[in-house]
Formats: sequence, structure tokens, C-alpha cells
Amino acid sequence: MECVVRPAQSTDCDHVMGMIREIAEYHNLLDEVTINSQVLRADGFGGDPFYQCLVAELAPEQEDKQGRLIGYVLFFFGYSVNTGRIVYLENLYVVSEFRGRGIGKKLLSEMAKAVLARGCSEMKFTVVAWNSQALAWYRHLGAQDKTEASDWHCFELGAEALRRLAGDGR
Amino acid sequence: MECVVRPAQSTDCDHVMGMIREIAEYHNLLDEVTINSQVLRADGFGGDPFYQCLVAELAPEQEDKQGRLIGYVLFFFGYSVNTGRIVYLENLYVVSEFRGRGIGKKLLSEMAKAVLARGCSEMKFTVVAWNSQALAWYRHLGAQDKTEASDWHCFELGAEALRRLAGDGR
Repeated sequence: MECVVRPAQSTDCDHVMGMIREIAEYHNLLDEVTINSQVLRADGFGGDPFYQCLVAELAPEQEDKQGRLIGYVLFFFGYSVNTGRIVYLENLYVVSEFRGRGIGKKLLSEMAKAVLARGCSEMKFTVVAWNSQALAWYRHLGAQDKTEASDWHCFELGAEALRRLAGDGR
Repeated sequence: MECVVRPAQSTDCDHVMGMIREIAEYHNLLDEVTINSQVLRADGFGGDPFYQCLVAELAPEQEDKQGRLIGYVLFFFGYSVNTGRIVYLENLYVVSEFRGRGIGKKLLSEMAKAVLARGCSEMKFTVVAWNSQALAWYRHLGAQDKTEASDWHCFELGAEALRRLAGDGR
């Protein structure tokens, strides 16, 4: 099995969106997915992209065919007031039948190269605790669980609350 | 007391860095601050900024003087595979003697306006659990504690582990 990791192109968005829906289903969050492949295309491949994406592509059986996408990593650049430039890992996914072959690690490895080249010194991300395989894997890679170690909590503020906040300033 | 919230300029970086060191001291994290005002300037005011920053400025007593900076909010744009464009709140700070006067809310409110205008529908951030005042305030604004609600954990992977990952792909 030959698998290449390369930057996603706008023409990949239909396939990436398919995988995003698969991962949402696994998390029982399909109802919360409000984006579609058009949105994904506009947000990642316009002048000022909101995310970066690498895809894992299986080598096509015939040379003139496109390879099958079997995984992706989606991330964005950010900042820490302690350490400076960071990368935020939003999502890493490998299609179930191709797991256990190092493809997730290959995706992360290519991402690491790209973000180190941009001066990032840290990766932040969140993992849901029932996903014990993911927890163990990230720990094995050297990640620290800040919730366990120092009781940091993840927060979200939705669109309605954001609009209320914006209105309060008028 | 007249206080204006405005986008930070590169000439504000010395003052913002001073406040970053204050907040790090409060969290007992001063040892972990590896950036300085030169780095802050380069990362926020180059061609491709890694963060956005608004500052709260006290009106100067004399017209030709610069006002005193008494708070800031530092954030960056990102992405959720569920909801699309998001904002990540890295840091919000108000100098202690000016707290309780709505300056933090004014900073967040101006940030909310700016990010809604860019199509963001969600704000993500982390809070350390011993900071009970911050927890209560963000909940009051409508934020949800995802660690408490669904056991999401915050993770960090440092520079050494990132370099190891990058090396694994060679």
C-alpha cells in the first residue's frame, strides 16, 4: 500500500467533507455539523484561509486516475502569550479500514514539519476522555493532558452569546 | 474615567508585553514566558499575523500624551469541522486597579463585533479551574464548560515532541 501525504486542494473538499461527517458520526455529533463542502472550500482556499489541511492519498491503481483519500489532518496557526507561535490541531482522521498502519502518524509528522518551518513551538488540541485510544496515543507521542495535570477546562461560547456580547458594547 | 478599546499597534507591544508578564505572574507561570516584546511585534504586525489584539486605553490627561493601556484581549481565527469559522480567545486581561468597571466586557464585546463580521460563529478558550471568578464570569456570559459537560480534555505537545514527530516522517 502506497500512501502519500500532500496539502489538500480545493477539489478535495467533497471527499474531506465526507470524512468530516464520518468522524462526527463516530462522536454522535452529526447534528452539530452545519458546514458543507462549499463552505469548506471557501474557508480554506480563499485569500485568507481559516485552516490548513493535509490529506493522505492512496496511490491510484491506474496512472491517470485520482487516488483515494483515506485520511486528513486539519489545523490552524495561533498564538500563546507564553511561548509565541503555536499550531492548533482541530482534527485528525484516518478511514477505519486503514488504521494501524502509521497513516495518522504520517499526517501528524508532515504537519509537524510544516509548522516547525513556520516557527511554531507547541501544538494544542482537545480530546474527549472516553476516546481512550486517542488519549493513549497522544500521550505516547509526548503530549501532556493539561486537564489532568493542572485542571484546565475547555470552554465554548456560541453564536447567540457572541451576538449578545457584541450588542452589549453599543 | 474614559476608556477606549482600539486595535493594538506595533508601538503598543512593550506595554502589552508588560501586561502579559503580569498575568503570567498571577498564574505562577513567569518561567514559561519565552517571548518578549520584539517577538510579539514580529508575530502580530508582520505580513501574516499569528494573532489579533485589542487594547483598552485610558484617555490621556493632556491631549498630546499617549493614554495608559489598562487591558488587552489577544485572539486568533481558527476553524471547527462542525461549525466552520471560530475565534480562539488566548488571553483577556485588565490591570487589577481597573477591574469591576466593565473593561473586560468592553474588550470582549469589541472582539465579538470584529469576529462576527468575519463570519465566526463560536469562541473557544480554556480556563484553569482554580480561577473561580473567571469561570463564573464566562458562564454568566453564556459559555459552556465542555470539560464538565462532556469530559473534553486540553492537551499540549511541546517543541521537543513536535521535532520528534517531524523526524519520524523522514
